[in-house]
Amino acid sequence: MDQYEMCWLEYKKLPEEELSWYREWFKRIVLLADREEVKTALTELKLFAKCALDLEPSIEHSFKKKKALVLGRIGKLAELFETPELHEEGFFILHRNVHGTESLVVGAERSSGFVHAVFELIKRVRLGERVETMNVISEPAMPLRMVNHWDNMDGSVERGYAGRSIFFENGRIVMNRRTRDYARLLASIGINGVVLNNVNVRNEAVKLIDDERYLRKLSALADLFRDYGIKIYLSVNFASPMILGGLETADPLDRRVRNWWKNQAKKIYSFVPDFGGFLVKADSEFNPGPHFFGRTHVDGANMLAEALEPFGGVVIWRTFVYNCLQDWRDHSTDRAKAAYDNFKPLDGQFSDNVILQTKFGPMDFQVREPVSPLFGALERTNQMLELQITQEYTGQQVHLCYLGTFWKEVLDFDTFAKGEGSFVKRIVDGTLFGRKLCGVAGVSNVGTDPNWTGHDLAQANLYTFGRLAWNPDERVEKIVREWIVLTFGNDEKVMNNIEYMLMKSHRTYEKYTTPFGLGWMVNPNHHYGPNPEGYEYSKWGTYHRANWEAIGVDRTSRGTGFTLQYRSPWREIFDSIETCPEDLLLFFHRVRYDHRLKSGKTLIQAMYDLHFEGVEEVEEFVKKWQELEGRIDPVRYKRVLERLTMQLEHAKEWRDVINTYFYRRTGIPDERGRKIYP
Amino acid sequence: MDQYEMCWLEYKKLPEEELSWYREWFKRIVLLADREEVKTALTELKLFAKCALDLEPSIEHSFKKKKALVLGRIGKLAELFETPELHEEGFFILHRNVHGTESLVVGAERSSGFVHAVFELIKRVRLGERVETMNVISEPAMPLRMVNHWDNMDGSVERGYAGRSIFFENGRIVMNRRTRDYARLLASIGINGVVLNNVNVRNEAVKLIDDERYLRKLSALADLFRDYGIKIYLSVNFASPMILGGLETADPLDRRVRNWWKNQAKKIYSFVPDFGGFLVKADSEFNPGPHFFGRTHVDGANMLAEALEPFGGVVIWRTFVYNCLQDWRDHSTDRAKAAYDNFKPLDGQFSDNVILQTKFGPMDFQVREPVSPLFGALERTNQMLELQITQEYTGQQVHLCYLGTFWKEVLDFDTFAKGEGSFVKRIVDGTLFGRKLCGVAGVSNVGTDPNWTGHDLAQANLYTFGRLAWNPDERVEKIVREWIVLTFGNDEKVMNNIEYMLMKSHRTYEKYTTPFGLGWMVNPNHHYGPNPEGYEYSKWGTYHRANWEAIGVDRTSRGTGFTLQYRSPWREIFDSIETCPEDLLLFFHRVRYDHRLKSGKTLIQAMYDLHFEGVEEVEEFVKKWQELEGRIDPVRYKRVLERLTMQLEHAKEWRDVINTYFYRRTGIPDERGRKIYP
Repeated sequence: MDQYEMCWLEYKKLPEEELSWYREWFKRIVLLADREEVKTALTELKLFAKCALDLEPSIEHSFKKKKALVLGRIGKLAELFETPELHEEGFFILHRNVHGTESLVVGAERSSGFVHAVFELIKRVRLGERVETMNVISEPAMPLRMVNHWDNMDGSVERGYAGRSIFFENGRIVMNRRTRDYARLLASIGINGVVLNNVNVRNEAVKLIDDERYLRKLSALADLFRDYGIKIYLSVNFASPMILGGLETADPLDRRVRNWWKNQAKKIYSFVPDFGGFLVKADSEFNPGPHFFGRTHVDGANMLAEALEPFGGVVIWRTFVYNCLQDWRDHSTDRAKAAYDNFKPLDGQFSDNVILQTKFGPMDFQVREPVSPLFGALERTNQMLELQITQEYTGQQVHLCYLGTFWKEVLDFDTFAKGEGSFVKRIVDGTLFGRKLCGVAGVSNVGTDPNWTGHDLAQANLYTFGRLAWNPDERVEKIVREWIVLTFGNDEKVMNNIEYMLMKSHRTYEKYTTPFGLGWMVNPNHHYGPNPEGYEYSKWGTYHRANWEAIGVDRTSRGTGFTLQYRSPWREIFDSIETCPEDLLLFFHRVRYDHRLKSGKTLIQAMYDLHFEGVEEVEEFVKKWQELEGRIDPVRYKRVLERLTMQLEHAKEWRDVINTYFYRRTGIPDERGRKIYP
Repeated sequence: MDQYEMCWLEYKKLPEEELSWYREWFKRIVLLADREEVKTALTELKLFAKCALDLEPSIEHSFKKKKALVLGRIGKLAELFETPELHEEGFFILHRNVHGTESLVVGAERSSGFVHAVFELIKRVRLGERVETMNVISEPAMPLRMVNHWDNMDGSVERGYAGRSIFFENGRIVMNRRTRDYARLLASIGINGVVLNNVNVRNEAVKLIDDERYLRKLSALADLFRDYGIKIYLSVNFASPMILGGLETADPLDRRVRNWWKNQAKKIYSFVPDFGGFLVKADSEFNPGPHFFGRTHVDGANMLAEALEPFGGVVIWRTFVYNCLQDWRDHSTDRAKAAYDNFKPLDGQFSDNVILQTKFGPMDFQVREPVSPLFGALERTNQMLELQITQEYTGQQVHLCYLGTFWKEVLDFDTFAKGEGSFVKRIVDGTLFGRKLCGVAGVSNVGTDPNWTGHDLAQANLYTFGRLAWNPDERVEKIVREWIVLTFGNDEKVMNNIEYMLMKSHRTYEKYTTPFGLGWMVNPNHHYGPNPEGYEYSKWGTYHRANWEAIGVDRTSRGTGFTLQYRSPWREIFDSIETCPEDLLLFFHRVRYDHRLKSGKTLIQAMYDLHFEGVEEVEEFVKKWQELEGRIDPVRYKRVLERLTMQLEHAKEWRDVINTYFYRRTGIPDERGRKIYP
């Protein structure tokens, strides 16, 4: 196995001054819980004490000394002081006087709570927070906080940009030291579920739910992840009863099919008693599904739900369903409308242990899209938000593109489903519609690269994802700063420059690629680099239909009617070219190149300006990073600089291709006479 | 092994009337040659006699009866009558009275001549020619008549559209009954060389020249092909001394490298004593070559030539060398100029057993390109013409696109290298410049499909390739008609309709795809289907640079200067928009959409018209084929109809995409108001 680093969990010995503060606190750990409940938490505490404090704590069961770090079950702690009520994964860290001992009391209900608590405590110590002021009560907003791996059993990763799969190699399941460290990384940011395999379940991967060699290995993997409060899930192929079971159908209303799934569930749970459940991409991009058998998504999902229900498992059913054999000549079909059209009529019909997982936007993870109208539309259905941590359309971990700022916009989007304040985050945490099984899923950006994510700064995306899943109300600036300190230390210039780069980077990437919600001008298949008409005549339904005078698809009430899927006032706001937010202008409207924006600029001039600006901003990123030479270890400094250098070259390519494309379309030169290639 | 058919060698019993004519002639075969020399020829004769005449000929050695079929070495026959002088592969078939016996005398010098003769005789019998009028003297125009297989050892075929490789499977060399039948098919059209593996030599294929397991298998393959007068060749990786030999260089001037190749040649020839030689793609599309070591193509090719020379082997060095990391922003570099620029200065420096193999056009096998100026430019270098039988850019054996008509134009192109009459065919047959090693190579369109070529009618391309290589002066109409009769029988309507379809099909394909020499508007990588800007911003140097008013690259003396690579009068003809042949207009010129063509039409209107016409012609093909129902066996009827139906659908896609592309560019509607999608 190759060497790897530990991202934000790379513990270094604390500076002398701080050592003295903290050592007193970590010398003795008083246990008011069963050893089994705090097993992992203690392991983590000890590891940190050893690496950062050069200390081996003693484990005690009573208060004898002046100071104590207490790990206690809330039930037991309640005998000592008034304890807050908490979600089962929650915890508190409180500075209290207990039996005359000045105590830092870490309380939780279950093993996972203790793990979260200890990682939180370690984080705060590493950020330099004084124990005396610690007063933390924390519980997750979202019940399900998952990463989805699009890993294939041959070791490749669909849309992976950080090496090979950490879970599969050559058709086998991998479990090694790195697997445990991955569980640690995930637990430290509050993740509680991981889907191990690609949603496109093909070839050998179909057998994961059946072949005992795999199930034995999954059982061991589940044990490992369980220590860290994480359940494992699998993506399944809807046609499994045919492929594995030898049935001639996978019709969800067929008794034999239903029985097959029930037996299969029994088999899985006999190996993995707390198996999370299935993630299903059905009737989507050539994956089989209930439509193939003349049935509905409800029929399909509920059948699987029935099989998993006795064991407490869930079915996560993706709403990424659309016609992927569209004809570009057909202007009436609008892919943006597909998820809503498919699933809105089914609201209220899904079983309680079914969750619909919806990509944030109506298309597919573009650098900017409006929030999917489906979130506000399903009132009686469990919902999960799907984000893409891996940077498929956002620079593939060659480009710096911090996604937290944009995710925050998505979570804070007000759907107006129950009037003002009906934020997406209140839907996917279950509170708005009173649903229990809700959450957020992020498609993983992790692979076997030594730094896990290819681009070192892309670690911030994974970190932020977990932190926002736990608490979507957290400020992104705070998350970014803590990630920087945990990862690169607390040098002021390092903090400021990296924060500046991260916070700006998504908008910068948007500027030099496809602003105004245009999207899709990428090379087909691999989706890297500019190709303005790469998808223009394809079957994928992603057209901009640029001609000599205008560009964009009219998705208003006068066009495809997509805007009508939104509730007021968004419906009206998006519907009018006057009120539509300009960064989504070309998503919703067909606009003439000479259309005047609010700034007074024409669309075409603004297009040119943004592309020149975007490149200038990348030049600034390079400069900001170069200022950090000597302040960051040379390995990571060089690695990031290489990527930034590539980013700059590729940003120029984007700028020039897009500007030339529009210039060749229109013959309109840049007002400021900058270089546009003819 | 799967079932397969025998294309134009599928022998059926002759009709009763003809049987009686021919049986008399085939009853007795008088041998005036060593048994070994006529072994294969006799086998073929007997097979035909059995299948078509239901007869087992007796082999005799003297003239006793009224009629005799004589197989004789020319040396021996010269004692009986005056014999013509012939090339060593040539033959004659003459009706003569010998010792009072009415004889059909088949004469040749060597085994391969007898094989060619017998296939010719069989063909003529199957075409119904009376023996009494046979008077054939035939010898090949081109010394080397080769097929190049772009087959990989995993069994895939680069640019293959007819199933898997017939030579490799799963990393192993395949030899079975089908291999022999392939040799028979090739021999029957006069091919005398076959390159077994892809010019891109990667992975396991590098070892073909070294690993004794492979060499033993190649030895057996060579034995098999030798029976049919065909030599085997291999593509080699120029870096082999590093990959296989463990040297740290492949510098052609390094003594160790030269010795390595010499030893390697010795090894190969110890297994295959008449091994043909090497085909080399060097310094091209990421393949290693002498440039990498600071050396020239001459250094590289001559080094290999020196190694093969003692054994009679040749080096075929491809001139398909260009900058494939071009920047679209650079308007001065012109890929069309690359082959000439690279190789013209080296004329006269290559060893006698080196041959430069040049693609017919300066770009890459587009549906129409001008003939490469390199042919007329190299006066002291052996040259081969490279044609592409496999339909990479010409419809991938889904579209009917008979290439013989176009190849004929290429062969008949007058380079004016030594004044009028300096045809390409006179250069590659060696006569114009008095060269011995010249010829033509065709990239094979053959795979494991039951009909060998995917599209049944694509067999005509392979057939025509061989026939034109043997005799480039043959009329294409004659070749087409004989192919139809040999393949589908002599039903008048079948002959007329298929001939009509074949003869028209290349021009039809050109019309609905990229007329005027435009080329390249295909989807990247797989090269199927329309994508007008698919390559517009790529690194491959294949741009059309369409803007709001004009399209095309100015390759004249006022532009990139490509026209200057031609001799007069082509240089002047191509250089002027007034005299340039219109079907190459956009290859040589940048032209405004409103430019008037000789017809009086604007370019844009002509573009629309051709696209509508092209589709109408495919509709006609479908009709013509449907008229043949019941006249062709149902399997092949249906198979071709399915492809024609797909062709029609995809031709409409081409028409609509290209028309829409130009309409969106210009806003100019079709004068005749036909449907162009907005």
